[in-house]
Amino acid sequence: MTTDTTTRAGQGRDPLLEAVRGGVRVHDLGRPLYIGMPQSPNHPAYWHTLPRRHGDMVRPDGGSAANDMLVMGTHVGTHIDALAHVSHDGRLFGGADAAQAGAGGRYLEHGVHTIEPMVRRGVLLDVPAALGVDGCDPGYEITPADLERAAGRQGTEVGAGDVVLVRSGWGRLFDDPDRERYIGAASGVPGVGEAGARWLADRGVHAAGADTIAFECLPPGKGHSVLPAHRVLLVESGIYIIETLNLEEVAAAGAHEFTFVLSPLRLTGATGSPVRPLALVGRPQGEDR
Amino acid sequence: MTTDTTTRAGQGRDPLLEAVRGGVRVHDLGRPLYIGMPQSPNHPAYWHTLPRRHGDMVRPDGGSAANDMLVMGTHVGTHIDALAHVSHDGRLFGGADAAQAGAGGRYLEHGVHTIEPMVRRGVLLDVPAALGVDGCDPGYEITPADLERAAGRQGTEVGAGDVVLVRSGWGRLFDDPDRERYIGAASGVPGVGEAGARWLADRGVHAAGADTIAFECLPPGKGHSVLPAHRVLLVESGIYIIETLNLEEVAAAGAHEFTFVLSPLRLTGATGSPVRPLALVGRPQGEDR
Amino acid sequence: MTTDTTTRAGQGRDPLLEAVRGGVRVHDLGRPLYIGMPQSPNHPAYWHTLPRRHGDMVRPDGGSAANDMLVMGTHVGTHIDALAHVSHDGRLFGGADAAQAGAGGRYLEHGVHTIEPMVRRGVLLDVPAALGVDGCDPGYEITPADLERAAGRQGTEVGAGDVVLVRSGWGRLFDDPDRERYIGAASGVPGVGEAGARWLADRGVHAAGADTIAFECLPPGKGHSVLPAHRVLLVESGIYIIETLNLEEVAAAGAHEFTFVLSPLRLTGATGSPVRPLALVGRPQGEDR
Amino acid sequence: MTTDTTTRAGQGRDPLLEAVRGGVRVHDLGRPLYIGMPQSPNHPAYWHTLPRRHGDMVRPDGGSAANDMLVMGTHVGTHIDALAHVSHDGRLFGGADAAQAGAGGRYLEHGVHTIEPMVRRGVLLDVPAALGVDGCDPGYEITPADLERAAGRQGTEVGAGDVVLVRSGWGRLFDDPDRERYIGAASGVPGVGEAGARWLADRGVHAAGADTIAFECLPPGKGHSVLPAHRVLLVESGIYIIETLNLEEVAAAGAHEFTFVLSPLRLTGATGSPVRPLALVGRPQGEDR
Repeated sequence: MTTDTTTRAGQGRDPLLEAVRGGVRVHDLGRPLYIGMPQSPNHPAYWHTLPRRHGDMVRPDGGSAANDMLVMGTHVGTHIDALAHVSHDGRLFGGADAAQAGAGGRYLEHGVHTIEPMVRRGVLLDVPAALGVDGCDPGYEITPADLERAAGRQGTEVGAGDVVLVRSGWGRLFDDPDRERYIGAASGVPGVGEAGARWLADRGVHAAGADTIAFECLPPGKGHSVLPAHRVLLVESGIYIIETLNLEEVAAAGAHEFTFVLSPLRLTGATGSPVRPLALVGRPQGEDR
Repeated sequence: MTTDTTTRAGQGRDPLLEAVRGGVRVHDLGRPLYIGMPQSPNHPAYWHTLPRRHGDMVRPDGGSAANDMLVMGTHVGTHIDALAHVSHDGRLFGGADAAQAGAGGRYLEHGVHTIEPMVRRGVLLDVPAALGVDGCDPGYEITPADLERAAGRQGTEVGAGDVVLVRSGWGRLFDDPDRERYIGAASGVPGVGEAGARWLADRGVHAAGADTIAFECLPPGKGHSVLPAHRVLLVESGIYIIETLNLEEVAAAGAHEFTFVLSPLRLTGATGSPVRPLALVGRPQGEDR
Repeated sequence: MTTDTTTRAGQGRDPLLEAVRGGVRVHDLGRPLYIGMPQSPNHPAYWHTLPRRHGDMVRPDGGSAANDMLVMGTHVGTHIDALAHVSHDGRLFGGADAAQAGAGGRYLEHGVHTIEPMVRRGVLLDVPAALGVDGCDPGYEITPADLERAAGRQGTEVGAGDVVLVRSGWGRLFDDPDRERYIGAASGVPGVGEAGARWLADRGVHAAGADTIAFECLPPGKGHSVLPAHRVLLVESGIYIIETLNLEEVAAAGAHEFTFVLSPLRLTGATGSPVRPLALVGRPQGEDR
Repeated sequence: MTTDTTTRAGQGRDPLLEAVRGGVRVHDLGRPLYIGMPQSPNHPAYWHTLPRRHGDMVRPDGGSAANDMLVMGTHVGTHIDALAHVSHDGRLFGGADAAQAGAGGRYLEHGVHTIEPMVRRGVLLDVPAALGVDGCDPGYEITPADLERAAGRQGTEVGAGDVVLVRSGWGRLFDDPDRERYIGAASGVPGVGEAGARWLADRGVHAAGADTIAFECLPPGKGHSVLPAHRVLLVESGIYIIETLNLEEVAAAGAHEFTFVLSPLRLTGATGSPVRPLALVGRPQGEDR
């Protein structure tokens, strides 16, 4: 038996694995999925059921398996929008004909299966912290000035290729007993508007996320009638959008810069995917554990 | 406006982010999901459809959104088994009463929502490479000797807390036009047996994965009648199982040790989750890009 | 070639077919099913989508087929409750152990597949007409006195084996833009209570129906916390319940007695089925068409 | 209290209800639906599961309800094809633009919700009986001559407005342990071809049915590559097609003419519906029971 010494020698030198060995704090940015959770009524509701439970079919050796059936839209729970999700004037990002792209019953072009897994610098822009409030008001439009103020307060630059997560504070309502509060159809929802989206696009970010269902500012009572940030990001700029993130914990920990990992399911031809993104923070060498 | 200088000063010192900046090779271990893909008939079939396509509802401003409906079992495609998936003699891991655990229609104990995201050392054990074959034969039982031989050839130790991925080579059949080949109901499927599972459990691994649907050795024509490795790993040892992995590319790259990242969906009370795990390899400092 | 003269001779003599030839008025008692229709949140929401549309796959000869995907509970839209739907003190109708009956993941005993198609005398009891109101008030309990008053006013006897449809007038709210009105969680819903159910059971009816989701009286704000009529009918008496019927048209036509036809889907092991029942009224001989 | 004497006096005179009172034999033409039943792989597979079982949630009064989740295509099990199901050269029946008809994600024109319930004369054409065989051979094309021979042997005329059910004998394979036999992808399936469909259309039938999945003749190994009978019936003639009927029992009873009742679910915008059609035979007056 021979030993692959090249690999062996190389092992100790993988700086990523070394950093993981040194300790990583994992911030879970995904929400639990459960029947009745707040979601947009435009998408098939999340439903989970157990076709088989333990005891239904016990094998002679005493073994038994339980399993699941899942029905859901892809834009429910914490999820990512593929570029195929939104079109404008009949065109997807890059000018593809939107009607043609879906012929066949799936979006092979710009579908969520085309999104590469993300292992990138992530930045949290904590807008309420910068504004000195617990959370933005319903229907509040987060402006470029707000984004810059948040970045400045934190001392975090936004760079090309980054994933930028914009906290509005709205995520505190996710578990509200009145599920309509988080949905905010009547009240409105805070978020980035067209100008803020342009600000993000100008910086060349890879993806943008928020702690709301729709990412962008929804004025009270207007619902999803106009979604300019989706147009700017998905259609004009090829920037993915991540929604319904849990940003409360990572914000409370003061983690404004981190390694962002997101691995969408390879749902061939779909316009989105449920995800459970992570914000990873390494422990500096020499720091006490 | 004040600047959070503490964080700023700390940013340069996150060794994980530094490693990411230095370059990371991402090996995608997840399979694409598509209608008609090979899967176990014991679970609801994967189906995807577009309720809304571009053009169905165009807003006055020219915007249009397409969306999806997803129906599937959780043990289809690349997926992880929660501890609640399998019981033995009426007991889940830790002795929980399996019948009681599911009362209510979901497994709150040991459900997939209880699995913490994994950012851990991952190890690939390339059994066919160690055996000098392209792939293990149908129904071949991978023994502890095989696992040790693979580890030895590679020079990779298996340690407590690792995620160990056992390549049988069966993954080459995933895209076979005859989808029954990968399923292998008639032919049998290679995999770890009871002894191999015990070997893994004895080393205290955190999770174990394979490039087959069932992880373990299925003798020809016997189907899923006995699943001893599931018992040893899930029920007796509390070790998660990851199935239908794509290990071909990572094996071809000779990556036997890496940072393994897996982030199961938080499907409350479910027995498994589709996942898209990653094997990350950092670039040693000073190495040419 | 020989002719089956026996059958031929008999054909003219089938009185049912003769009656059909003479003219039948068909009253459709089923509601349309559509996304967003009012339904109980206790059951999976109705969703319909087109996986394949015309043009997606056109055959060389110019042909193309479109198809559907349907996701739904069985207790949504106009539907019938099988005896397996409700238990009391752990027992189904006839004393079957309710927990055991469902082991295996389907109710082979008393499931909806065991319901024979109904071709029976049907009776409409128009309670609002008897009370001189357009519709019963929210939360109003329909009493035996009300049922007798309705029967008396109409001159219709209720006999053993009949299917009795109790109109509350609530069906006028089915298409209300505020879908919560028909559901009536806050307001309450009119319907038969325990005494009324007993009255029906005492007469030996085969099935009982209503123009509401839950058949029975729901006091305001109490939801489905107690369902005595379900207990009396399904569990104690083996009488099927039909819900969400459209009784407006048949009532407006003054049809109080008719041939009732209901043919539940043979959903093996299910607790209910969507249905589209019919009230058929033949044309008396000699009557002008 | 006044009595509606008009209605009362009229009750005894409803000839349909009189016939029902005289006795009706109900032939059930619907197949049971169950997981794993034979169906076309072109449509979402039938799946049923119990989200809630008895005991999951017991109310304080001892009551408990179980319920279902259903996932399925509409062209599975015994079902009816709406006119929207098939197009030819981009046109539906009546010349409607097929691509436009589905824009919006549902076929409001010619969808299954537009099919009126059927209470009509039904005719069974027992082709194997006429040919002196147990069942037609795989891939056998049933010709106009065969249909006429069957009608002649039985002494049954086919008239305008009738529902004509063509028995091939293939239904005997529905419960075959090898579910591929009934599907017949490799072997072919017997059925009406273009000429037979024309024969039916020329007689002005309202709907045509068969005991196979596809209604029409499928030559061995050619699958659904060309479906001329669908074109002739659905697209050119506006005649509905009913598939996967159970015609074995009604044929064994020698019932060749009957009252046919079919009540499709009002699935708004869908291209088909599962159904459970009935063949009703009245008892001639004076005949012994």
